[in-house]
Amino acid sequence: MQFDVTILGSNAAIPAYNRHPSSQVVNYNGNLFLVDCGEGSQFRMQHLNVKRGRLDNIFISHLHGDHFFGLVPLLTSFNLNWREHPLNIYGPPGLKEIIDVHFKYANTVLKYDINFHPIEADAPRVIYEDNHITVETIILTHRLPTTGFLFREKPAPRKILSEKIEQYSIPYQVISDIKNGADFTTADGNVVPNVELTCDPAAPRSYAYCSDTIYTDSFTEQIKGISTLYHEATFVHEHAERAAETFHTTSTQAAKVAEAAGAGKLLIGHFSARYENLSTLHVEAKAVFPNTHLAVEGSVFEI
Amino acid sequence: MQFDVTILGSNAAIPAYNRHPSSQVVNYNGNLFLVDCGEGSQFRMQHLNVKRGRLDNIFISHLHGDHFFGLVPLLTSFNLNWREHPLNIYGPPGLKEIIDVHFKYANTVLKYDINFHPIEADAPRVIYEDNHITVETIILTHRLPTTGFLFREKPAPRKILSEKIEQYSIPYQVISDIKNGADFTTADGNVVPNVELTCDPAAPRSYAYCSDTIYTDSFTEQIKGISTLYHEATFVHEHAERAAETFHTTSTQAAKVAEAAGAGKLLIGHFSARYENLSTLHVEAKAVFPNTHLAVEGSVFEI
Repeated sequence: MQFDVTILGSNAAIPAYNRHPSSQVVNYNGNLFLVDCGEGSQFRMQHLNVKRGRLDNIFISHLHGDHFFGLVPLLTSFNLNWREHPLNIYGPPGLKEIIDVHFKYANTVLKYDINFHPIEADAPRVIYEDNHITVETIILTHRLPTTGFLFREKPAPRKILSEKIEQYSIPYQVISDIKNGADFTTADGNVVPNVELTCDPAAPRSYAYCSDTIYTDSFTEQIKGISTLYHEATFVHEHAERAAETFHTTSTQAAKVAEAAGAGKLLIGHFSARYENLSTLHVEAKAVFPNTHLAVEGSVFEI
Repeated sequence: MQFDVTILGSNAAIPAYNRHPSSQVVNYNGNLFLVDCGEGSQFRMQHLNVKRGRLDNIFISHLHGDHFFGLVPLLTSFNLNWREHPLNIYGPPGLKEIIDVHFKYANTVLKYDINFHPIEADAPRVIYEDNHITVETIILTHRLPTTGFLFREKPAPRKILSEKIEQYSIPYQVISDIKNGADFTTADGNVVPNVELTCDPAAPRSYAYCSDTIYTDSFTEQIKGISTLYHEATFVHEHAERAAETFHTTSTQAAKVAEAAGAGKLLIGHFSARYENLSTLHVEAKAVFPNTHLAVEGSVFEI
């Protein structure tokens, strides 16, 4: 199954140096999930050929504008493009009022339904589930109520060994049961244990989006063993004091979170407009957590 | 005096083909006036090196998102960039509520004052005046209350002829009076009439921004003799019926407005996303009004 994330925007607060505010598209097997939607996200989607018709779920972390100013424009374009299938939006309760006031003054009647799911940032909850993945909130510590989002792949069924199908003449009808753990009883009454017939599936993959937050270990347990962690790294470590004041994180600290969580890979983003060159941010994080990547516009990371 | 307009966005409704929603910067002698502010206007300002610190007045024509979705992001960036001098915003009354709801949920306390000037779209009014120019509203006919904006240069003082200063030994102190029409009395009591001392100044220049509107002659009288007319040309003339249905104008019709108004120059913009190539729009307009230009991103037109 395809499971990757495309970066649409990598900057904090103010766009600069052709870096844009936060937005990412998670692709799970062709279903697209938009995570935050800073100004101009629809431009970058066009530019990167993101298939917007496959986007049915949008997650907004908090109500600082660099994380959602592109949302109402995107909703408007969906409408002008005759979208008809429903859209789910998960975000802070106030987001509903912000959306509604725009449509009120524009006399907009939507051609599609928006199902708005208010997020309370008090405790982690599963807010989305389908056959393959769940999405749960991560409680972050910022100047506004803020949540990250944790995409978890569900455990795959066990893998049946093809040579065993042949050896025991296993009929088609029981394959699914065996993949789900059943033993197999042969025609002459012998029970073949499941462990002989199958092997472990690939470990479930997971992706955590953590922006914006002060440096904290409060959610480390929740993301333990994460495959890929996106963590904000607004500042270089020299500016750690400024990071704490503004409830943000340095690149060194982001790497420490990845290390503590035993992450497979770390993506850093939400870079301050004060840095034209991102190399210090990258070098500092890699010193703590070598498998760190800059999550800049247009890059795609497999989870 | 410098008097020009820089195009930041040229498209209608949906961004397409690297064309962006409506926004323009009028520069009068270094003072910048923003006219509409579609999504991502601040990106184009950065790209085109527009000096945002010189921008003290923003005019919003109506509350369709392609004309203002970039406004709150711009106001937010001003705040993050420590703007301290006040900003005037002229727009439909509902715009205030839209701005306020964003700042409420972001807990934003602005470091600068916004003076909001609600515009009623019932009759043309002068809404801005300084020593050099006035700005008056133009009542347009669209699906929402909509106004254009008419920038008029005030008549310049008469030009005093340098050879006459020498001939009559005119002292420095009375030059200003003569420029404003006074005669000059020589030391021996002869009255030299103003007409002998001065010549006509350059004719006052004017710029009209007319977007969005159905094809109408309702404001032709108001813009009679306009130096430069920007008029929307959303559709090619083959789509005149669609233009009328949506209260928009074809390029041929825009050119007819320019002709009827005796305009010096016509700029067309607000192009539908259905047209990748703009040449038909341009050719059609030029057939009626030869001095027509495509108002595309990054172009600068002297008024």
